[in-house]
Order: sequence, then C-alpha cells, then structure tokens
Amino acid sequence: MAESWVNSGERTGGSDLHLELSGPGSKRAALARALRDAVRSGRLAPGTRLPPYRSLAADLGVARNTVADAYAELVAEGWLTARQGSGTRVAEQTRPPHTAVRPKRPTANTTRAPDRQPPPRPHPGPRPAARVHDLRQGTPDVSAFPRAAWLASYRRALQQAPNEVFGPGDPAGRPELREALAEYLARARGVRTEPDRIVVCSGFAHALRLLFGGGAGLEKGRGSGRQVLRGPLAVEAYGLPFHRELLAAEGVRTVPLPIDAHGARVDRLTCERAVLLTPAHQFPTGGPLHPERRAAVVDWARARGGVVLEDDYDGEFRYDRKPVGALQSLDPERVILIGSVSKSLSPAVRLGWMVLPERYVGDVLAAKGEREAWASVLDQLALADLIVSGSYDRHVRRMRQRYRARRDRLVAALAERAPHIEVSGVAAGLHAVLRLPPGTERSAIKAATWQGVALDGLAEFRHPDAGRPAHDGLVVGYATPSEHAYTAALEALCRALPPADAQPVITEQLNN
Amino acid sequence: MAESWVNSGERTGGSDLHLELSGPGSKRAALARALRDAVRSGRLAPGTRLPPYRSLAADLGVARNTVADAYAELVAEGWLTARQGSGTRVAEQTRPPHTAVRPKRPTANTTRAPDRQPPPRPHPGPRPAARVHDLRQGTPDVSAFPRAAWLASYRRALQQAPNEVFGPGDPAGRPELREALAEYLARARGVRTEPDRIVVCSGFAHALRLLFGGGAGLEKGRGSGRQVLRGPLAVEAYGLPFHRELLAAEGVRTVPLPIDAHGARVDRLTCERAVLLTPAHQFPTGGPLHPERRAAVVDWARARGGVVLEDDYDGEFRYDRKPVGALQSLDPERVILIGSVSKSLSPAVRLGWMVLPERYVGDVLAAKGEREAWASVLDQLALADLIVSGSYDRHVRRMRQRYRARRDRLVAALAERAPHIEVSGVAAGLHAVLRLPPGTERSAIKAATWQGVALDGLAEFRHPDAGRPAHDGLVVGYATPSEHAYTAALEALCRALPPADAQPVITEQLNN
Repeated sequence: MAESWVNSGERTGGSDLHLELSGPGSKRAALARALRDAVRSGRLAPGTRLPPYRSLAADLGVARNTVADAYAELVAEGWLTARQGSGTRVAEQTRPPHTAVRPKRPTANTTRAPDRQPPPRPHPGPRPAARVHDLRQGTPDVSAFPRAAWLASYRRALQQAPNEVFGPGDPAGRPELREALAEYLARARGVRTEPDRIVVCSGFAHALRLLFGGGAGLEKGRGSGRQVLRGPLAVEAYGLPFHRELLAAEGVRTVPLPIDAHGARVDRLTCERAVLLTPAHQFPTGGPLHPERRAAVVDWARARGGVVLEDDYDGEFRYDRKPVGALQSLDPERVILIGSVSKSLSPAVRLGWMVLPERYVGDVLAAKGEREAWASVLDQLALADLIVSGSYDRHVRRMRQRYRARRDRLVAALAERAPHIEVSGVAAGLHAVLRLPPGTERSAIKAATWQGVALDGLAEFRHPDAGRPAHDGLVVGYATPSEHAYTAALEALCRALPPADAQPVITEQLNN
Repeated sequence: MAESWVNSGERTGGSDLHLELSGPGSKRAALARALRDAVRSGRLAPGTRLPPYRSLAADLGVARNTVADAYAELVAEGWLTARQGSGTRVAEQTRPPHTAVRPKRPTANTTRAPDRQPPPRPHPGPRPAARVHDLRQGTPDVSAFPRAAWLASYRRALQQAPNEVFGPGDPAGRPELREALAEYLARARGVRTEPDRIVVCSGFAHALRLLFGGGAGLEKGRGSGRQVLRGPLAVEAYGLPFHRELLAAEGVRTVPLPIDAHGARVDRLTCERAVLLTPAHQFPTGGPLHPERRAAVVDWARARGGVVLEDDYDGEFRYDRKPVGALQSLDPERVILIGSVSKSLSPAVRLGWMVLPERYVGDVLAAKGEREAWASVLDQLALADLIVSGSYDRHVRRMRQRYRARRDRLVAALAERAPHIEVSGVAAGLHAVLRLPPGTERSAIKAATWQGVALDGLAEFRHPDAGRPAHDGLVVGYATPSEHAYTAALEALCRALPPADAQPVITEQLNN
C-alpha cells in the first residue's frame, strides 16, 4: 500500500508520522481513515500542520484531488480546521464525533484564556453539509499570494532603505511608492496624475474615513470636526453594506441612485455634492458605467462644483473587452480615484491609495496627521519594488488568466446544468451575478447552505432606501476558493440552484 | 594619497567613482572637496547613495569621524541629503552653493510632478549653522533598526503562514501576535492578561481613536457615533500635543492634572471618568508615578467606575532601577494598557496593542470593524516571530545598553560643561529634561537653533489650560541621532546652553 511520513515537526518537536493506506474502499476513504486514526490516537497533535496536497499526493502515489477530498472530509467532521490550501491543521480540540460539544462564549471567562479555536463541528448528518465551499465575494484566491515575489521585494526594499525610513513617516506615503503608483496607474488604468497628488492609506475604508471623518483624522490647528467632504453622498443602489455603515457611523447620509443596464442613473443626482461610483465594474451587479454616463457625471461635477469618488476596486481584472480606463482620466480635478491591493494581492497587505484633485491634497494630508500613523512603511517600500520590478504586473496577469478560466468554467457549468439561469457581470472582476426569478433568492441561498455553499444574495447589497424593483440573484465570488476546491464548489453550487420550473416564494412585479 | 571607489551602481547603472584625497588642508577638507567635485561634475549622480562611513573610511584609510564630518559638511551645504547613518545620498537638485534657489510650493503645479526633494540649503554663513543635530524626542535611533532579524522573522512568518492569512483578517489581530504579546508583556512589563483581551492596532493614535472616536471606527448595528469611552479625559499637564489635538478633533475635552515630584496629582481628579497617564516615565518630565499614587488612581477608578489609560510608550527602557511594572497589573479590569513598537523598533512598523478590561473588548472590536482594515497582517506575523524567537528581547537589550551609554555621556558632558544645569528624567526612556532657570527656555532654544541643534522646550508639551508655574526646560531626545553623530550633537548642545550667570528674559515666581 501507499505510505507516507507526515513531518509534524513544527508542533510536535520533530516527530514524523507514518501513514499507511489500507483496508476496504477507495484510496480517499483509506486516507481519510488513516488521518482520522492518527488524530484520534494523538499521533497527529492538535495544531499540527498537514503537508500540502501536492506533496502528500506525490508521497502516497495518489491523485492530488484524493488528498484534497480526504482533507475536506475531515474538516467537515471537525478533525481538521478549514485552512484553504496547504495550511490544513489538526483541530485544537478534537473529540470523537459522537461526543456532545458545548459551544463556548467568546469572552465568557475572565480568569484564564479561553481557547479561541471554534469547537469542532459535529459529524454531519446526511444534510445539510458542513459549509466547505466558500463562494462569498470580496476575497482573492488566498492560496495564490505571490509569496516569493513579495518576499524578494520586501528583502530588497529593506536592504536598500535609507535609515530615515525607520523614522517618522511622511503622511503622504513613501515617495518611492507614490512614484511607482503614478506610473503604474497611468499605464494600467489611464489615470492622469503625479506622485504629489497621491496619498497612501490603509485601504478603501481608511480613504472614506479620511474624506468624511470629522474625527477620523487629526486636523491640526483647525479645531475639531472639519471634514474634507460633506454628506449627503449619492451611492449606487447596490453596493457594499460595510461602506454604507461606515459612512453612517461618520454621520454621512447616503442617497441611492437606481441602476439599470447602463449602470448608475447619474441623471438622478439632485442636491448631493459628491457621488460614489464603481465605474469599471458596478459592484455587485457587474456592468460598466456607460460612456455617456461617464461623461455626464463629470459634467455634473463641473457644473455643480461636485466630486466623483471612483472606487476602482477590481479594475485590473477585465477579461473580454479592452480595459475600461479610470473615469478619473476624464477630469483629474473632479474625480478622486481610490484603489488598493486587497483584490490584486491580498487584504492582508493593508495598502491603498487616493489619487486626488489638487484642492483636496492639503486637507487629506491634514486629516491623516503629522506623521504616517497607519500604513506600514516597509510594506510601502516592498509594494513600490514589486511594481517597479514588474512582479506586480506578472502577478496580475497570472491571476487574470486564472480568474478568467474560473469564470469560463462557471459559465460552462451553468450552461450545462442550469441553462435557465442568466449570468451577468462576468466581463470583469472576481464575482458574477446569477439572476434568479423574482422571489426565489432567499430559498436559493437556503438551498446553497444545504449544499455547503456559502454565498450572498443581491438583497445583502441593496441600499435600504432603494426603490423597487428589487432584483433577485446570487453573488458568486469565484476567486475565493483555492484551485483544487473550485470544481467541488461549482458542483455544489449547481446542485443548489432552483430548477427551471421553480415557483417563487413571493411573487414580485418586475417593471424594469 | 588615499583613494577609494564609490560604487554608485544603484542609480547610475553600475559605474564606479574614483575618489582621490589631495590638495591642502586636513583629510576631512580634502575628502569634502573631492566629494563636492564629484557631485558638481555629475560623476556622482543625484540620488546616488554614498557608502557607509565605515567602509569609505576603511577604503581611504582615514578615521570614521573624518568621513562623517565631511558628509555632514556637504549635507549642510546642500550637496547631499541628510540621511542619518549610512544612507547619505547625493541631493536630487544640486546647484552650486552660490546659485539663488527659489523654494517651491509643495502643491504648486498641476500639470507635471513637482520634484518633492527639498531645495538644497544655501551655503551656511558663519552662523546659524544648518540644523544638522537632531535632538528632538520621539524617535529611536533609526540606524539601529534590526534589519537582519526583522527580515529573518518576516521570511519565516511568510513562509509558514497558512493561506488563510491572505484572506480577510480578524480585527482583534493575528492570534500568533496576541499570544506572543500576552506572554511578553507578562514577562517584561508585569501585565496580567490573556490573548483575548489584546486588540492589535496601528499605534497609540489609532488606539485613542478606537476608544474615543464616534466615527473613527465602524460600529455595526449600533447607529452612528457611539464611543467606547467618553470625555472629558483627565491628562497630565505635560504631554504630547499631538494626543491632545487628536482628542480635540474627536470632540473630547482634556483636563490637565498638575505634576509634581511624585508625578501626576491624581488626587485632583474630579468629575472625569477616564484619565490618561504615563506611569512608568512621565512624558516628558521624566519621573515615575509614585507607588502611592499608582494605588490611589486605581482606587479612584474602582470607586468611581472610571478607567485609567496607561500609555506605556517606553516601558522597556529603564536604566538604573528595577523596571517599573505596568500599572495595569494592579487591576486589569480598571486599566487599559496601550503600547507599540514605535520606540522599541521603529515608527515605520505600524503596530501597537491595547490590553483591555473584559467589558471593553467587544466595543473596541466593533469600533475596529468587521475585518482587519488597519494593521498589516504580515507585519503582525513577523513581530510575533520576532518576539517568540527572542530577537525582540535581544534588540531591546542592545538598545537599552546603547541608550544608557548615551544618557551617561549626556550627563557627563553636562556635568563638565554646564554643571549649573539640572538634568532630570534620566532613569528611563529615550529623552532627558534639562531644567532651565525661569524665563530662559525660549532663548535657549534660539541658541540651540543657532548651533544647528533641533530640540523642543517644555512649553511645547504644556497643556494650554495647565496652571502655574510653567517650568522651563529643554527636552533632549538622545536616542535620535545615529551613533556617529552623537558626539557632535552633544558638543553643539553644550555650546547652546545658557551660562551659569544667564539672566532670565521674563522672571517668574516659582511657588512649587
């Protein structure tokens, strides 16, 4: 039989573990049994990291998917913890599946550290499946972070950094990064700017706080509470609830603009002086803002002294057409472009940027404070090197190919298994929208949960003040699973979709 | 004559530069002349980094100070840019010193990138000297950042990180870091806590905003503007103006507590429910809070349902006595300890921590947001590794020795050159206070400027509502200069101090 040694030295002091695949059933069943026995007997200690699929598969002479499936099975049973990709570990608290588990309250205990590990999942009955397929939008494939390239850039940056780097930082951000971004954004996104108009921040949320937060930034010598921009802020009727809540916490009222096939109805702007848009790829419904509307919203800003906030959250990832350039290029004095590496690299690297009209630069810097108090200066230098060295472009290209292939597989799977479901928003980005018959969204999400699929419905993103109609649909984040997990996730998704003759739970009138 | 090759490959495509020390005068003058010629002729291109003193000194067979002095001279003349330590570079815009220089406005130009480099300093006349000695408090020796150890920890952390690290982060911070901090703070600072009570943040300013900022953090489902703590906040009569301004911008009124020889007069607390203290080393006056007052302020918090914010900004650096443990250990349910790596490592690493009473954990996490939107997750893992591997302790020990030696040299220099000046606050930290006769502070700062020394007076740190008397003094940040620059900085400082028979500009009554 196939055999392998699991090197669990990291947590168990260098001991090795012998795995032997024997007994009845498939290789996958035999591997799952061997791993289960090893955990139960304590040979694989809690916290031990298991080898990557690829290496264990090679050692055992089995297919990589066999290992992936066996791991997934043990995760669902609570023996292992669900780390995407190679970092699967033995759960901290493993109990035989038949043992009753009493969930702990997170902050229940004051005298000693409660164990933060979640309790192991009980052994699943036939259904619902443990939630193992993560198709929620918002996260790139975490297994694809370019560790080697990032480390190489980080090393070069650290070794070449002048000593002053380790002193108080310029709140605008490191000049190396602002120069690299100015060049990159001009080339890749058509942005017209210069390094002095760029302010580095920790991400999109930080940018919104710097713009609207009376207290989010320090404004020396200005008294308290002065904001760079003031509400109300027009937003798209569908968008991230996180952003709306953040703005509400800053006391900024948001006013929804309807969305149609050409994107946000910017002709509906009334008294607002600022509008937040996702012009390249409306989030989450997926279309680009029509060229006429791009021009119209800039005209509006010029005529009314307004400003457009351009959330360029996934502008790098466009598959079918020519890239949709940044709206900012139409009028750099009327558009604030905000971007980050959260989709292109990882949300773990807390770096974003604002490309500002000249008149806002001083106020944003004042809001940020006298010194850099937010964005890691070493990460800034590493990102500058990653861009200048070409590694960033290479990574984006690689991911674009990977995500395009996933998108194609999603579209193909739906065409075969659920041809009655319309897919939209697939020309770009890391997610698609599956349009559903009116009134079926909630039951579709329930069915997905039943199949172990985590995803959101369109209702999650709808502005509470948005008018009718509400659209039913599922937002599928196809970048989220790691490569090996994608096939199974697609399968589970297709099983969850309503059949062609599904009856709506609540019938709504579509008047659009 | 001594010769050397300056390898300027970094910016000039690998070309080498031949330096020959010839002509009249000292070796220092000859080296300065050779460097000046090389810059003027373009052989040393703008931006080229010069070799470290040590290597150039070895190559030329001259003393290290000779090189340091020659560099300093060219920095003062505007040929080189003032990078502390080895990173000295050729200024981006070098003009012959006699050329008139028109300063640029930072955001003057809209069509092309203005060069952000400062204009070169004009050649100094006999006096005042160009400001080359930085004795401002607040920054550790930037030349001492443990690059190799940090990089080793970063590499290990990146290589060992499970994939989930690259997805959305826990707003509490990485468990690896919180565990390492709980252990370290217990051992080094006597803190009583557990990882679940620690919330990672970007530094002290971020912590203040999370605690007092209605809008600085997102509080999902709570409506807008709910704060974890409310003002007014009692503060020490002397402290960082940055903190007071930040609080004012959040709408928090600060009420000063007088300071005497035993530290803050916590018996003067009245209606406030929160007090911000620097118990280990009052900032900037320098004494520890008297044990009776430590007990008294905790009693006050218990009796009044109040909370003490402990700013543990330099608790690691104590030289003469046993470490003063954290006040937090007296009552972990009544004290919020806030620390960061800004003094121990560098403000370029944007990491801090809050050690919280249980009742605040949920609110602070809600204020921080659903996901980690601030602190670099990779830096968090690197810091965890740095601590667990022992490198952090080694670095702190090394820096403690270095700073103690500097403090000793400062005290010795003053004893010899200005024995009438009383030095205080030298048992700990990275700065000392030189007490001055009443009314002489402003003229002493002017004299320091005249000598090329940058430092602050006590008045800079005084709360605007603080009662009389105001104390005159200079706050000397002796950690700021790099090793080679310290001797010259001390010399210049001593030259700037008022003589024993100095007449005060304004005589004030000392009734303390």
